[in-house]
This record gives sequence, C-alpha cells and structure tokens, in this order.
Amino acid sequence: MNQSFDIAVVGATGTVGETIVQILEERNFPVADLHLLASIESAGSSVPFRGKNVRVREVDVFDFSKVKVVFFAAGPAVTSSYAAKASAAGCTVIDLSGVLPASQAPQVVPEANAQVLAGLPKPVQVSSPSPSATALAVALAPLRGLLDFQRVTVTACLAVSAQGREAVSELARQTTALLNLHPLESNFFDRQMAFNLLAQVGTPDAQGHVPLEKRLVTQLREILNLPTLKVSVTCIQAPVFFGDSFSVSVQMAGPVDLDVVNAALEAADGLELVDAGDYPTAVGDAVGQDVVYVGRVRHAVDDTSELNLWITSDNVRKGAALNAVQLAELLIKDLP
Amino acid sequence: MNQSFDIAVVGATGTVGETIVQILEERNFPVADLHLLASIESAGSSVPFRGKNVRVREVDVFDFSKVKVVFFAAGPAVTSSYAAKASAAGCTVIDLSGVLPASQAPQVVPEANAQVLAGLPKPVQVSSPSPSATALAVALAPLRGLLDFQRVTVTACLAVSAQGREAVSELARQTTALLNLHPLESNFFDRQMAFNLLAQVGTPDAQGHVPLEKRLVTQLREILNLPTLKVSVTCIQAPVFFGDSFSVSVQMAGPVDLDVVNAALEAADGLELVDAGDYPTAVGDAVGQDVVYVGRVRHAVDDTSELNLWITSDNVRKGAALNAVQLAELLIKDLP
Repeated sequence: MNQSFDIAVVGATGTVGETIVQILEERNFPVADLHLLASIESAGSSVPFRGKNVRVREVDVFDFSKVKVVFFAAGPAVTSSYAAKASAAGCTVIDLSGVLPASQAPQVVPEANAQVLAGLPKPVQVSSPSPSATALAVALAPLRGLLDFQRVTVTACLAVSAQGREAVSELARQTTALLNLHPLESNFFDRQMAFNLLAQVGTPDAQGHVPLEKRLVTQLREILNLPTLKVSVTCIQAPVFFGDSFSVSVQMAGPVDLDVVNAALEAADGLELVDAGDYPTAVGDAVGQDVVYVGRVRHAVDDTSELNLWITSDNVRKGAALNAVQLAELLIKDLP
Repeated sequence: MNQSFDIAVVGATGTVGETIVQILEERNFPVADLHLLASIESAGSSVPFRGKNVRVREVDVFDFSKVKVVFFAAGPAVTSSYAAKASAAGCTVIDLSGVLPASQAPQVVPEANAQVLAGLPKPVQVSSPSPSATALAVALAPLRGLLDFQRVTVTACLAVSAQGREAVSELARQTTALLNLHPLESNFFDRQMAFNLLAQVGTPDAQGHVPLEKRLVTQLREILNLPTLKVSVTCIQAPVFFGDSFSVSVQMAGPVDLDVVNAALEAADGLELVDAGDYPTAVGDAVGQDVVYVGRVRHAVDDTSELNLWITSDNVRKGAALNAVQLAELLIKDLP
C-alpha cells in the first residue's frame, strides 16, 4: 500500500503531542501532509518531523476538511470544542483527552479490544484510554479468556510527567533544593513531591474517589469487556519523572495455574514478561520502550486463587502517544 | 513509681538502636544505668543520652546479669547469639530483629494485642514486629471487632532508611549524580533507586515471595489474632528517605459503614485520622511523629464491602524503636 494520508495533531506542543509526531516518524506512518495545531497561546513554535521543523498553527482557524485523521492530544476544553468539527468534516478522530463519551468514542487498546473498531460508524471516533488503563489492559487481556476474574486491586504509582512539564520541573527543583538544604517551594504539587509519595492525584469527590481512579475503573471494564468486574484503585503520585508502575492483585474464582499465566503472557502482543526472580522498573525497562513490562508473577503468599503482578509502562508512549498511533494504523486500512 | 531499671541496647550504633536511646530519654523512661552494646566492629563509638555521651561496648564480653531489660536492635546473627544468654541471665528481652520464633517471643504492638504480654512466662521474651506489620496493626486493630475481615491487600512503599545508612547515602548520591548528569553508580541497590521504584525488596523464593512479604503476612495474622486472614502483600522500595506508606484494601463480609470506621479510627490509640479530602504523607506527617496516620478512608469505587485506606508511619520510630520502648514501658510494671 503506497497510499498516504494528511494528518493533524491538536495539542502538538505538549509532551504527548510531540511524542505522537515522533512516533509517526519512527513507525513510518504514511503521512502526506502533517498539520500541527494548538490553542492560540501555544501556536507559533515548531516541532521536528522528518528532518524539518513543522510550525504549530492555531487550531481555531484550521480547515479540518484538509486532513483524514486528527489526533486530539490537547486538554478536555480544546478537544470538546474541535472534535465535533473534525468529525463533521469527515475526519477520523482519535481522542487522548478522555472527554468524549464512551457511546461516541469507545476506549480501545489494540492488544485488548481491536475488534471494537470494525463496528464503529464512519467517520470513526475512538478514544485512547488513560495511560493506566492502557497498561493494565495490555497485561490483563491475555488472561481474560483463561481465568475467571473476580476482582482487580491496583495501586498505580504514577510518574509526574503525566501532569505536564511544570510537574517535571517542580520535582527536579524540589529535589535540588532539598539536597542543597535550601527551602522547599511547592507551586504545582500541593505539598513536597521530592522524596515523598502523594496519595491523591486530583480532587476527590464526596466519596473520596478522584476522577483518575473512577476513569480507570470505567475504562478497564470497558476495554476488557467485563462490565461487572470489581476494580479497586488507588492512584499515587511517585517522585519518578517518567514511567508508571502498577502493583496488581487479581482474585480469580478458582486456583490459578501460574504456568498457564506465564505462557499466555509470554505469547501476548505488546508486552514483555520478565523472568521469575527479576522484575522490571519504570526507569530501567519501561521508559522509551513500546511494550508493557510484566514481572513478579506469583500467587498471594498462601492463596493460589489470587494472582499478583508488577507492571511498568512508559506513560507517554504506550500509555498515550503510541497507543493512539497504533489505533490510527488500524483505522487507515479502512479509509478511502 | 520511682523505681528505675538498668537497661541494655544491643545494636546501639544503628539507626534503630540510636532512636531507642533517644526515645528512652524523650519519654523519661526510668533508666538507672544505660549500657550500649554492639558487635566488635561497631563498639568504641558513643551515643548521647541525657546530656552525656555513652560509650558503646562489645556485646561479647557483657555481663547481662547487670541489667533488667535488653533491647535487641542488632542483626539476626547477633540477636541469635546473645538473646538466649540475656534471657538466661533473667533479663526481659525485646527483640527487633525478627529472628526469635513466635512461640518463644510473640509479636506485640501495644495498641493491637497488649493483652498477650500478661500471659508470657518470665523472664519475658517479646518481639517488636516489622515496621510494616506494626503500622498496619495499629490502623486495622480498631476495626477488627466491628467488621468481618475477609482479605487484606497491601502495597507497602518502603523508605530506604529501613535498609540502613548505606541505602540512605546511595539514594542521595544517585539523585545528585542524575541531577548533575553524571554517570550513575549502584552499589547497595541492584539498580537505579533515584526517581524509580523497585518492586522487590530482598531475594524471592521459588514462589516469588520475599522474606519481608512473608513475614508481614505471618506477623499481621498473629498480631490481629486472625490466623486464617487472607493477606496479599507487595513490598516496594520507594525513593523516599524516611517514612513508609501503605495502600491498603480490606474486603469485608458485608457492607462497610464508613461512619463507624471513622469513629473507631478517631477514638483509637496511636493513630491520627486525617480529614476526608486531605491525606497524610510519609515526609509531611509521619516522619518524627509517634502516631500512625490514616487517610483516604473510602469504599472501592462501587463496592461498599471493600474498605480502602492510605497509611503512613515513621518506620524507625513507631515502626521499630518507639514500639519497642512502649513494650518495655508495659513490661517493667511487672518487674520486681
């Protein structure tokens, strides 16, 4: 197939947007013209693509009929404003903001529920899930047909990069200040992030749940197609720049055969099973890689119906930009 | 009571040993003579107590009949060698190494199972549990009579200080190197600890469990007196100097009334319940404090039979030294 496509990336100046551009180049995505877009505050800068600097233009004045596929890597407000416009212009819309409802743009992780894409009305609107849901879906999907999932308990230890560049700078700045015995300033985070763990990422509702946690429960059920699965989630902010880590316990209806689990994970797409005795880390394994790493595959200490896993993933790549580009790769096969 | 007691601290040069000495002073423990002991390699230094520097002497040549109470804050080998000698000399033995079997020296956290002390043969031998088991016991004991515990799932995010001074130095050194773009060296940890999370603290057995995790399961069941409780544990090493954090899910047999839980935690000894909407952190709340902090008290997203908690504790104080001194405070009431 020599066909190539005009593509737009909205939110091109953010970490995820820039990574989408980089991955389009890395994977030789058949891009004809690339249009980089942002809100008026961010427009004007440029992002390298295939050896040239592509200027970022204002999304407000863009004619979406010029492109076939649009990635929305912008915030919820920008995505809400322009996704409908892009879809009305006939574009395939891939949303990373999480703002489009599941009924309009289902959450899809190719390794877990690619079959959903085939049934969508044209022009397609699809969501690339949160980094946490994506990583967990890649790791759990291969086991879904083999084991009877009762309950998933997750502690997600999230990298600060998911909160943007300001969060990354603040962790570095606080760390330097502490090591030099200088006074600590917290502007972005609500308290000391360096050498600490924050137990709440976002503002909790009256029940104590933060939107990130509720979204993870909803998205994981949707992607795994297990609508009544019990999912218990705590998202914590770790003093880690890049790469998410997940401590996961899955209760099954009966005893889990670890050989079967290991064989299924070994054979699965998009993940790498780390040898028993070893374990992956966010920084040492996941960052910069396209696969989700799974290790510490074990029962609970004396309960063979519980499966414990440790999962690490690059929150910006597979957690966001790569998954979105993979969705585009599948969707362009059906474009005229 | 004006009676005072001759006391020995074995392992007095370690972080926990030094903190025991400090807490004995802080709490006006009725110390007559204080004998600080260590293996031959560490003897010779001194530790401040009540305005004087107390010299650390060799445990090997110490006459245990000179003291009434001995704290073993040394490693397992030293404790194994000298605890029996101390007990034979009539001393009350308080072990922090975890090496003495439960049948000989039960695990006790005063807030959870102080009643165990009354039934012990004299001279008493008792164990102060691991920092993780202690923190979890303080937080869960007040709920034990109110709720029907089915299963506890814990991700324990441990501070490097539990591994000793070398671990603390390596985290500081690695962090400085990374921020200055210098090459990274890992001597103590098996890989990069700075800005990373390590999923395995210790060497796993053939089933993938590390001793720390197995000990936590055993100790928690013993302290809570729930011998068949299902406990699933993952201990991870966080890039935090001091203070442990725990993400905990407890499944109950039926719906949990959060008002009842909050009231029980509010009334409990040794813990501080953090207001809904807020949460404690290791660094901001726990470190240097005597209480265990509990926050984020909530159900799972849509399962009222699951209780989720976030717990932080000073691993050196309440997790070790303070708990041991509290045990001594209770035990000296029965000494002649």
